[in-house]
Amino acid sequence: MSANPDLLLLNGREIDPSAPAVSPLDRGFHFGDGLFETIACVRRKPRFLSLHLERLVSGCARLHIDLGAVNVIRDEVRHAAAATDVSLIKVMVTRGPAVARGYAWSGRETATRVLLRYAWPQEDTAAQREGVGVRVSAMRLGENPALAGMKHLNRLEQVIARSAVPGADAAELLLFSSSGQLICGTMSNVFVERAGRLITPRVDRCGVAGVMRRVVLREAARAGIAVEEGTVSEADLDATREIFLTNARIGVWPVRSVGARTLRAGVLTQQVQSSIAPLLENPVDA
Amino acid sequence: MSANPDLLLLNGREIDPSAPAVSPLDRGFHFGDGLFETIACVRRKPRFLSLHLERLVSGCARLHIDLGAVNVIRDEVRHAAAATDVSLIKVMVTRGPAVARGYAWSGRETATRVLLRYAWPQEDTAAQREGVGVRVSAMRLGENPALAGMKHLNRLEQVIARSAVPGADAAELLLFSSSGQLICGTMSNVFVERAGRLITPRVDRCGVAGVMRRVVLREAARAGIAVEEGTVSEADLDATREIFLTNARIGVWPVRSVGARTLRAGVLTQQVQSSIAPLLENPVDA
Repeated sequence: MSANPDLLLLNGREIDPSAPAVSPLDRGFHFGDGLFETIACVRRKPRFLSLHLERLVSGCARLHIDLGAVNVIRDEVRHAAAATDVSLIKVMVTRGPAVARGYAWSGRETATRVLLRYAWPQEDTAAQREGVGVRVSAMRLGENPALAGMKHLNRLEQVIARSAVPGADAAELLLFSSSGQLICGTMSNVFVERAGRLITPRVDRCGVAGVMRRVVLREAARAGIAVEEGTVSEADLDATREIFLTNARIGVWPVRSVGARTLRAGVLTQQVQSSIAPLLENPVDA
Repeated sequence: MSANPDLLLLNGREIDPSAPAVSPLDRGFHFGDGLFETIACVRRKPRFLSLHLERLVSGCARLHIDLGAVNVIRDEVRHAAAATDVSLIKVMVTRGPAVARGYAWSGRETATRVLLRYAWPQEDTAAQREGVGVRVSAMRLGENPALAGMKHLNRLEQVIARSAVPGADAAELLLFSSSGQLICGTMSNVFVERAGRLITPRVDRCGVAGVMRRVVLREAARAGIAVEEGTVSEADLDATREIFLTNARIGVWPVRSVGARTLRAGVLTQQVQSSIAPLLENPVDA
């Protein structure tokens, strides 16, 4: 999993990824004052591009960042995706270079837009088939409805949680909130079975409203599976018979163990995987 | 209050502040994976430089960022401060450009160090003398002990709180935590009087352990004022007879109103101001 993108666009201009590019006054750099999307691209097409852009537009509106014409980004992503069979495209939008010192924004900033295209990592197919182990992180997420749901650039919680490195026994760490609810993984959303239904934690106090989470909520409902957002307690996690993780890149990963407890990939997980497989294989826009 | 620093050093090298300088792969830019200090400099000397560097070293240790020799930063700050009568120097340290994609750090990153020197804003003397109005922010801070106390680069909460722009009636907004305790202002720490003692909120669940807060705790105790860290409730705020704000630049600002409620600059506030005035006027290292 190389760090180096093979393509980098800054405000639409292609530049050398190894060269300095970002203003040292950028509010993304100073405050994490911005948002990002990680878009999985297969068969030279971005998956669920409209859903990603919808979330980006929504986040920019919440933060009062002037994104400009979203079709500019749409075209950039499509063009970047078309050049290589599979790739991961990260789009970052910040409020741009500061026009005044301090936390307050003036409204006169010009947003910074960065597109980075990375090679697709290799480990994923086995994880989709065989499932992954997870553990519960000792760190709990802070709760702030003003930030919840957005894929913003304040990611120190994920950095810290992830630094308790998942070993051979765990590909992901589950995160609870400070008030004791299960929320997500460090880089994924989570679904658990409860009384025959699928529940994914609400993300209105913390966590990110993942695009694949949204796709699973929609496709599971279309497939006749009972699925909903809700609160998920530690007891729910202990009692569940099925868990799976979602994100834009991994699709659905069945969870085969939580710490020392072993689980099997259950029927709900398999149904969800089947229902979204065609969409992962042949990208659609929404 | 101009946004443009008159001096910018990147890893010790002087560069044009208006030129691109930061790697588009920097983890400070992607995740806010870093820390900063804002150091007030008067009479060509940084105030409390050793306290700032102590906090920076402590934060880097908590985040496992390899800061390198702290004396390099000490010398840079002193040198930058010496060139102009008064200034504000912001030092940023990030984990540096990513060596792998994703939140986890590898330990092989090389930290990025930025020094920005800004002109000193003008409004401060009146605020120190006459006090300022404050209001209570509608936004509450998320609580995460893993982040609490550090002056890290995840500042979206402050950006959002500050965007409810303080008007003529309010120079600062007071922030409560998600569990309902008073913590700080958007850019300041806070002290309140309770039963004749000064209390400043604990910063072990959220908030920043301010350098001026630390100086006030120390100097007030030396001056025989009863002062301590503690929890401060909404009722405490409503009942208090004195409040003041602290930060490295402003020193101590008496609070003359909280919303519609008027306060007078009380005797404790004046004692604290007197006890720290010599240290603000003639900078000492610690």
